[in-house]
Amino acid sequence: MGVNSNRVEDFSSHRITTESVMPGMEIHTVCLSPQKTTLQKLKQRLSEIFFPDDPLYRFKNQTWRKKLLLGLQFLFPIFQWAPEYRLKLLRSDIISGLTIASLAIPQGISYAKLANLPPIVGLYSSFVPPLIYAILGSSSHLAVGPVSIASLIMGSMLSETVSPKDEPILYLKLAFTATFFAGLFQASLGLLRLGFIIDFLSKANLVGFMSGAAVIVSLQQLKGLLGISHFTSKMQFIPVMSSVFKHRDEASGLLKCKEAFWSWQTIVMGFSFLVFMLTTRHISMKRAKLFWLSAAAPLTSVILSTLLVFCLRSKTHEISFIGHLPKGLNPPSANMLYFSGPDLELAIKTGIVTGILSLTEGISVGRTFAALKNYQVDGNKEMMAIGLMNMAGSCSSCFVTTGSFSRSAVNYNAGAQTAVSNIVMATAVLAAYRLWKVDKLDFLACMCSFFGVLFISVPLGLGIAVGVSVFKILLHVTRPNSLIMGNIKGTQIYHSLSRYKEASRVPSFLILAIESPIYFANSTYLQERILRWIREEDEWVKENDGSPLKCIILDMTAVTAIDTSGIDFLCELRKMLEERSLQLVLANPVGSVMEKLHQSEMLDSFGLNGVYLAVGEAVADISALWKSKPDFPKDCNETRPCIETKR
Amino acid sequence: MGVNSNRVEDFSSHRITTESVMPGMEIHTVCLSPQKTTLQKLKQRLSEIFFPDDPLYRFKNQTWRKKLLLGLQFLFPIFQWAPEYRLKLLRSDIISGLTIASLAIPQGISYAKLANLPPIVGLYSSFVPPLIYAILGSSSHLAVGPVSIASLIMGSMLSETVSPKDEPILYLKLAFTATFFAGLFQASLGLLRLGFIIDFLSKANLVGFMSGAAVIVSLQQLKGLLGISHFTSKMQFIPVMSSVFKHRDEASGLLKCKEAFWSWQTIVMGFSFLVFMLTTRHISMKRAKLFWLSAAAPLTSVILSTLLVFCLRSKTHEISFIGHLPKGLNPPSANMLYFSGPDLELAIKTGIVTGILSLTEGISVGRTFAALKNYQVDGNKEMMAIGLMNMAGSCSSCFVTTGSFSRSAVNYNAGAQTAVSNIVMATAVLAAYRLWKVDKLDFLACMCSFFGVLFISVPLGLGIAVGVSVFKILLHVTRPNSLIMGNIKGTQIYHSLSRYKEASRVPSFLILAIESPIYFANSTYLQERILRWIREEDEWVKENDGSPLKCIILDMTAVTAIDTSGIDFLCELRKMLEERSLQLVLANPVGSVMEKLHQSEMLDSFGLNGVYLAVGEAVADISALWKSKPDFPKDCNETRPCIETKR
Repeated sequence: MGVNSNRVEDFSSHRITTESVMPGMEIHTVCLSPQKTTLQKLKQRLSEIFFPDDPLYRFKNQTWRKKLLLGLQFLFPIFQWAPEYRLKLLRSDIISGLTIASLAIPQGISYAKLANLPPIVGLYSSFVPPLIYAILGSSSHLAVGPVSIASLIMGSMLSETVSPKDEPILYLKLAFTATFFAGLFQASLGLLRLGFIIDFLSKANLVGFMSGAAVIVSLQQLKGLLGISHFTSKMQFIPVMSSVFKHRDEASGLLKCKEAFWSWQTIVMGFSFLVFMLTTRHISMKRAKLFWLSAAAPLTSVILSTLLVFCLRSKTHEISFIGHLPKGLNPPSANMLYFSGPDLELAIKTGIVTGILSLTEGISVGRTFAALKNYQVDGNKEMMAIGLMNMAGSCSSCFVTTGSFSRSAVNYNAGAQTAVSNIVMATAVLAAYRLWKVDKLDFLACMCSFFGVLFISVPLGLGIAVGVSVFKILLHVTRPNSLIMGNIKGTQIYHSLSRYKEASRVPSFLILAIESPIYFANSTYLQERILRWIREEDEWVKENDGSPLKCIILDMTAVTAIDTSGIDFLCELRKMLEERSLQLVLANPVGSVMEKLHQSEMLDSFGLNGVYLAVGEAVADISALWKSKPDFPKDCNETRPCIETKR
Repeated sequence: MGVNSNRVEDFSSHRITTESVMPGMEIHTVCLSPQKTTLQKLKQRLSEIFFPDDPLYRFKNQTWRKKLLLGLQFLFPIFQWAPEYRLKLLRSDIISGLTIASLAIPQGISYAKLANLPPIVGLYSSFVPPLIYAILGSSSHLAVGPVSIASLIMGSMLSETVSPKDEPILYLKLAFTATFFAGLFQASLGLLRLGFIIDFLSKANLVGFMSGAAVIVSLQQLKGLLGISHFTSKMQFIPVMSSVFKHRDEASGLLKCKEAFWSWQTIVMGFSFLVFMLTTRHISMKRAKLFWLSAAAPLTSVILSTLLVFCLRSKTHEISFIGHLPKGLNPPSANMLYFSGPDLELAIKTGIVTGILSLTEGISVGRTFAALKNYQVDGNKEMMAIGLMNMAGSCSSCFVTTGSFSRSAVNYNAGAQTAVSNIVMATAVLAAYRLWKVDKLDFLACMCSFFGVLFISVPLGLGIAVGVSVFKILLHVTRPNSLIMGNIKGTQIYHSLSRYKEASRVPSFLILAIESPIYFANSTYLQERILRWIREEDEWVKENDGSPLKCIILDMTAVTAIDTSGIDFLCELRKMLEERSLQLVLANPVGSVMEKLHQSEMLDSFGLNGVYLAVGEAVADISALWKSKPDFPKDCNETRPCIETKR
C-alpha cells in the first residue's frame, strides 16, 4: 500500500503548487477509506445484509446472569411482558379476547370453507396458533387466525390436483402438510435472517394483489349467497362469473348450458344478514365506543341463522347447512403429515406460496400497529414466531394462520383506544389513486398484480407482482439520470441547470452529474449519453459563440458503487475524450468508488489532476492552472495509459 | 399548482427571517423541477429508454434531399462508405480477404461439426452472411462467420431431442429453423431498441461463461484428437472425461465399462498439427509482420492432412475423414424452415439462446475494435444487421453466424496495423484475477457462470450468469450504504467521518448520507438502520458528555429516486423522531425526489424548516434558530400531520 500513500502525498504536494497560483483558495485532497482486509469487508457486508438492526446490542457490557435473562427474553418475549403484567390490564384483555372470539367463530368457519376444509379445522385454527404466538411473538396487538387470501390460495392450489369431495382424507393430509411446509419456510426465512425477501412485495404490489384477491374472495361468496349448487372450482373472474349465470350440466354427460339455479330462500337470508352486518359496521364506524357492535354482528348472524335453519329444516331443503361439528379440543394431527409420495411436491409448493403470502400479511399488519403505538417489530423474530406457530398448528389440526388484519383491528379497538380502522382502512381505490399521483410505475405494478390475480391465477399474479417490482429497479439502474450542472452565483454550490434558473454554465467546462451506480447494466448507456451531452454542448457553444469546451467534470457524488464494467467505461471514456483534447476529471467519488479506482490502478492513470473533493475545487484549480499554463491539457497532464483487460 | 408556488414563497420569506438572525449568511431555496405533464414525462422517459443516443440528430435542420440521402445511409451503411472507397484500399482488402478465407475453411468445417451439421453447411455459412453484413453492418472491422460457442450450444440443445445420426434431414431442418428464429429474435431486439437486454451479460459473466465454454469446446476436440469412436453426446465435464477414459459398450446390450479405444495414428497426426499451429502462432505473435503465418496455418494443416489421408487411405482405416463435399454455391433452404409441428418449441428455444449468445459475442467484438479505432458502433443497428444476416442465412443453407473474434482480429491485423491480438487477448486467468482484485462479487459471478457452464449445462450456465448479475444489483439496492457525515473545518463541505479524519461531528446534529434510491426493497432496512445510527449516536453522546441530539439531517444528494414506499418511510421516520423530540430535515433532494415529495403532500407536512439546499445551510439556519428560540423544535415547527394510506 506504499503506492497509495505516495499517491495521496502526490496529490497534496500538487495542491500546494496550485495554492501558490491562487492564494487564499484551499484545495482538499480526496482520501481513500481506511484499509480493510477482504475478510473484514466480507464480515461487515454480511452483517449489514443479515443483522442490519444489530440484534445483540442489548447484550453488550452486561453481566453473565443478565445476559441469560436477556437471552431468554429475546427468544421468548413472554418473559419480557409477563412479569410486568398488571391485573388492571386483565379487564380490557378479557373484553378484547371475547370480542375477538366472537369474530373468530364465523371467520374460522368461512375461511375453512374457502380452503375446502371441514369447518371444524377453521375453529381449531383459532385456538392453538394464538397460544403459541403469545409465547413467541413480539407484537402485542397482532391477533392470529386463518386469513382469507391464504385460505383461498391453499384451496385453489390443492383442489387443482386432489378433489376435496372425492378424497377428503388425502386432501386434509395435504392441507396439514402444506401448513407444515409453510411454517418451515417462514421459520427458516427468519432463522436465516432473509426477511428482506418479503420486502420485494412492495406496497404498490400488495394494494393491487390484495384488491384482486378480495374480488376473488367476494366472488366465491356468490356461491353461498345465491345458493348455487353446481359452482366452478376455478378462481378466476371469467369462469366464476359464467358459472353464476350458466349451469354446465356435467352429470348428464352432455355439455349443455342452461341457466344456473338460484335458491331464493338462500338469497333472502343471505342478503338480510349482509344488510344487518353492514348496518352494524356503519354504526360502529360512526361511534368508536360501539366498536363491539360490528365485531359481534357476525357471531349473532351465525346464531340467528342456525336457529332459523333449525326451525325451518322440515320445510325447506334448499338452504344448505354445515351440519354437526365434533366436540373437544384440537386432536393431534402429526400422524397425518405426508413426507413422501407423489403429491409431496404439490404440498411443498402450496406451502411456500401460502407461507409467503401469510407472512407478508402478518408482518405488514404487525408493522402497521407497531407504527401506530410507536414500537418496533423485529421482522426476523416475527417470521420465526409465525413459522413455529404454523408448524405446531399443522400437528394439531390447524391450517395456515397468520396475523389477521380484521381481528387485530378489533383487538386494538377493544383496547378502547380509538377507531383505528377508520384511519388505517383506506379503500383500495384511494390507495391506487395516490400511487397514480405519486409514481406511475408503482401504479402500473399495482394494476398488473390486480389484473394478474383476477384473470390469470393467484400464484402467477404474485409472480407478476414481484417481476414488475424487480423490473422497476432494473429499469432505474439501466437508464440512470444524468444532468448538466451550473454554478449558483456567489457560492461554491453547483446544481442542475434545468432546475435552478440562478445556476449558470461555467465557460470551457461541462459539469455532468451521474445519478446512479455505474454498472455493467448501464455503462454502455452512460457512454452513449455522455458523448451525446458533449455533442450537444459543442453545438450550443457554436451557436452562442461561447468559449470552446476544454474539460469535462463528472460529479460522482451519487455514484454510490462501481463495478469492473464501470471502471472500463471510465477508462474508455477518458481515452475517447483525450483523442478530442478534452480533459476528464472526477469530483467527489464516494469511499467505495475511490477504493475500486485505486485497486484497478485507474487512480494512477487519472494522473495528478484527475480527482477532486468537490466540483467547486475542481473548477477553481483547473482554471488557475489554465491561467498559469495556457496550453495546459497537453503539457501538464502526467497520465499513464489505462490498463485494460478485454476478451 | 398554486400550492407549490405559495410553498416556495413561504420558504423564501422564512429565509429572510433567518437572514436577519444571522446577517451575511445567504440561504438558498430548494426548487421544484419545471412543471411537466404526465405525457411529457412519459415521452422523455421512453426516449431515454429507447433512444439514448438520439439517432435522428443528424436529420435536424437538413434539406429534404439531404434527409433522404442520410436516411439511406442510416439504413444501409454501405452507401456511406462505398462512394468514398478508394482503389488503394483494395490491395489491403484483398490481402485481408484472402487471409480470412484461409481461416474460414477449417473454422467452418470444425464449427459445423460442433453443431453436428454436415461440414458443407459451415462453408456455406462463411459465404452469404458476410455479404449481407457488408451491406447492413456499421463496423468496418467485424468479420462474420460461425463461432464456436453458438455452434456448440446449437448442437447440444438440438441433439438432446433429435439425433443427428438417425434423423439427419429433420436435424438439418431444425438447425435452419433455429437459425431463422435466432435472426428474428436479434432483429426484433434491434428494431424494438431493446439493445440494453444484452447488457445484462456483464463482462464478469462473459469472462466466466466464455472460459467455461472454451473448456467444453476443447474437451469436445478430444474425440477427434484421440480418435475415439464411441463418444458421449453430452457436453458437461464429467460425462466427457469419463467417456475419454472408459468405453461403455452399448452395442452388446450389457453395461460393461472397458477402457476407451484410442487410435494412435490419429493421435500422432493430431498432435503434429497442433504443434505446427502453436509454433506458427508463437512466431506471428513475436513478429507482427508475419501475422499471415498463423492465419494460414489451419488451412495448410487441412490441405496437408487431406493429402496424407489420401495417400495412406489404403493402409489405415483408423483415421476417420469427412468425405466428399458437394460443389457449387449455397443452395436455397427456405423450404426447409419448419413453422409447425412438435419440435417447433425446441427450435425457437434454441434460436433464442444461440441468438442471445451470438449477439453478445458479435456486439462485444464490434465494440472492442471500434474502441481501438475510436469510432462508435450503434448497438441497435448492429443487432438488426446481425439478425437480418441470420434470417437470410437460414434461407441459404447457413447456420448461426456472428462477428467472430478470431476472424476479426486477423482482419484487423491483415490491415497491417499492429498485432492487436497481443493487446486484446488477455488470458481468462488474468481477467479473473483482476475481477477478484477489484470486485469480489464480480468474481463470484464469473466463477458461477464458469462452473455452471462446465458442470451443469450451457443454457443453465447462461441463466445462472444473468441471475447472479441481477442479484448483485438487487443486493446493492436492498442494503444501501448510509454514513455519518462531519464538517471539514473552515469549509461548508461535509464528508464521511470514517473516511476523513479532518471531518468532525457537529454538536446536537446527526448528519446521515443515504447512498441509494429509497425503494420498497430497502425502506424497511433504512428505517432500522437509521434508528440504529441514532441509538449509537445517543450512546456516544452519553459516553463523551456531548450535547444531546436535537436534529437529524438526511443528506439526500445520492437518493436519486423515491417511490411510494420510500415516501411512507420518510413519513413514518419523521413521526417516530417527533415522538422523541427530534427534528428531521432533508438536505439537497434531487429533482425527481422533490417532485414526488410535492405530489404526495409530504413537502407540506415537512413544514417550513424541512428542506434545505445543502447540509451546510441546514446546519447554519437551524443553529441560528436555536440561538434565537432556545425551545425551538416544539415551538416553531409548523408541521401538519402526514397523510398516509395503508391497507
